[in-house]
Amino acid sequence: MKVNGTPYRSIWLHDNGWSVNIIDQTRLPHAFIIKTLKSMHAAAEAIRVMRVRGAPLIGATAAYGLALAMREDASDGNLSSASETLLATRPTAVNLRWALARMRQALAQLPASERVGKAYALAAGICDEDVAINYDIGRHALGVIRTLWQKKPAGCEAFHILTHCNAGWLATVDWGTALSAIYQAWDAGIPVHVWVDETRPRNQGAALTAWELLAHGIPHDVIVDNAGGHLMQHGLVDMCITGTDRTARNGDVCNKIGTYLKALAAHDNDVPFYVALPGPTIDWQMLDGVSGIPIEQRAASEVTHVGGKNSAGEIETVQITPDGTSACNYAFDVTPARLVTGLFTERGVCDASETGLLSLYPEQQGPAE
Amino acid sequence: MKVNGTPYRSIWLHDNGWSVNIIDQTRLPHAFIIKTLKSMHAAAEAIRVMRVRGAPLIGATAAYGLALAMREDASDGNLSSASETLLATRPTAVNLRWALARMRQALAQLPASERVGKAYALAAGICDEDVAINYDIGRHALGVIRTLWQKKPAGCEAFHILTHCNAGWLATVDWGTALSAIYQAWDAGIPVHVWVDETRPRNQGAALTAWELLAHGIPHDVIVDNAGGHLMQHGLVDMCITGTDRTARNGDVCNKIGTYLKALAAHDNDVPFYVALPGPTIDWQMLDGVSGIPIEQRAASEVTHVGGKNSAGEIETVQITPDGTSACNYAFDVTPARLVTGLFTERGVCDASETGLLSLYPEQQGPAE
Repeated sequence: MKVNGTPYRSIWLHDNGWSVNIIDQTRLPHAFIIKTLKSMHAAAEAIRVMRVRGAPLIGATAAYGLALAMREDASDGNLSSASETLLATRPTAVNLRWALARMRQALAQLPASERVGKAYALAAGICDEDVAINYDIGRHALGVIRTLWQKKPAGCEAFHILTHCNAGWLATVDWGTALSAIYQAWDAGIPVHVWVDETRPRNQGAALTAWELLAHGIPHDVIVDNAGGHLMQHGLVDMCITGTDRTARNGDVCNKIGTYLKALAAHDNDVPFYVALPGPTIDWQMLDGVSGIPIEQRAASEVTHVGGKNSAGEIETVQITPDGTSACNYAFDVTPARLVTGLFTERGVCDASETGLLSLYPEQQGPAE
Repeated sequence: MKVNGTPYRSIWLHDNGWSVNIIDQTRLPHAFIIKTLKSMHAAAEAIRVMRVRGAPLIGATAAYGLALAMREDASDGNLSSASETLLATRPTAVNLRWALARMRQALAQLPASERVGKAYALAAGICDEDVAINYDIGRHALGVIRTLWQKKPAGCEAFHILTHCNAGWLATVDWGTALSAIYQAWDAGIPVHVWVDETRPRNQGAALTAWELLAHGIPHDVIVDNAGGHLMQHGLVDMCITGTDRTARNGDVCNKIGTYLKALAAHDNDVPFYVALPGPTIDWQMLDGVSGIPIEQRAASEVTHVGGKNSAGEIETVQITPDGTSACNYAFDVTPARLVTGLFTERGVCDASETGLLSLYPEQQGPAE
């Protein structure tokens, strides 16, 4: 999408043809910094410290990371160890695993001399595929949004969509997942207004989603994560759309911590709650998301400290808890399928259930392995 | 309760016998500053900028504010205008209204010359009454906590209570409401561990509740407001206890924004959800809390900016949103009675319903005015 009128993707090959550019998302929304990754370890670091985040972009960055690794040493040993290093950066992200497995399988069949070129081509292919997938997710979602908008009484001035975290183009290669729906609804002339959950502890909503929407010119208000229930209770939300990092075979969705609470509020107030996802984030082997998906715990300091721009315009971190207090930081939660109205995928809209998912992905028929 | 071994209340008369000391809660948890209020306007300012907060403490501060006003000018005109000024500081707090009405009614009957002494006596009485009420709330709650603790399987090492915002002694004159229950359970030897919701946007949980629990030595972890659903889903919460700023006749409770979301999660996971309240915060005229209680909107800057201690140890505010983004800040929400397991009051434990409340407050029988 555009930044100051210039179209960008969130990851792209440098003009030198081998190093990889990303937008350093730890610096957003206060500074727009492009960082060039020149090694596999730089790519792994970018994933680990969340310069890149969002399941699809993590997968794309890992793919380019493996290409950089092949450029450094295209041996079987390095193919294996680089894959392991990249895989260990974020344990919850299923399409990190997917992208690496796909790359590794293809590269292992080739002689070392052919691996570099093939790795870059595969990484570029993964990126292009992601862009196409996300466009299609938004295209299918647009149908649902249009129907809901047309059901509102005449004279309504806005269609209010609540979203959690950042499932925008910054979380993917382009378009985003949940925000692809919003961009396409806006571009289609539906007067969208977005309630942006700030999404503690890392504030990806307040920082990244707000930044994206501002850049695109879509009306929005940042709210604290506590506010959505009240808004839904009072008819101020027409629909929720979130992303998901991992979708179980039964339709349970694992997304940023707090998503489950919004789904509960939507259910309690008959607000449609949709989740947007690309096919590769479906974990067909995971039969039950609530009981089966392991939840990453991150550093307590993400809870006890908040980063932002101080009055001098510098990035600074402040401690909000008293010295000596402890904190606990679960990064994701799982929303049971029963609370999800439907799933937006690149192949269409379906129920959040095994039956629903299989109707769009019939090649996954048969028992899970 | 104690601070560094010294017992404090949250408001008390200065040794000079007329000015009023408070703990400046805007400086907690990073500094423990006692502020002396020497005028009605200082008391009003303390309420308005939340140097004092929490329904009972707001009432007590307003009472002393009216005493300070009488000291300045004990005329009928000033009794009226000072009451109005104090009443306008926080529109949602019902026992601000209650304390002022009680004071004003008693003082209006007296000649001006007797008003100062009477006002101070009444304010002191309101404080002592609050302390007794809060002690009794905790005493009744202890019975419920003990029963729940005894139902846990043998070998459990902790009883996990989740709380939202700060309903501790800092929000009252002493003991607190929700935290009175926790203090008394801890003092009774139940191995309490508290999940402390940080409570955006003002972080009263991360700042004040954590500070209180740390001072008292009760194990706790601060969590983001997003985390409670996940914890409850995985059996990590035995009970929720929150306060309430205003309880409707039907048992709906108006408390800090986000309480409703926690009640939904508790309901979805069969976690007992209790609300602790002193009788004076019951609004007997409010028949339906969800539809009837007006919700205060506060400054957007509370959402876009977060205050804390920077690396130099100074209090600093950082902006978490991009320049130019807008925000919306509802301060409270209403939790419907159907999600509340029971109410802890100074008179006992009851169902969250008109019938339940009237069983403890039979003098309120008969239709609301």
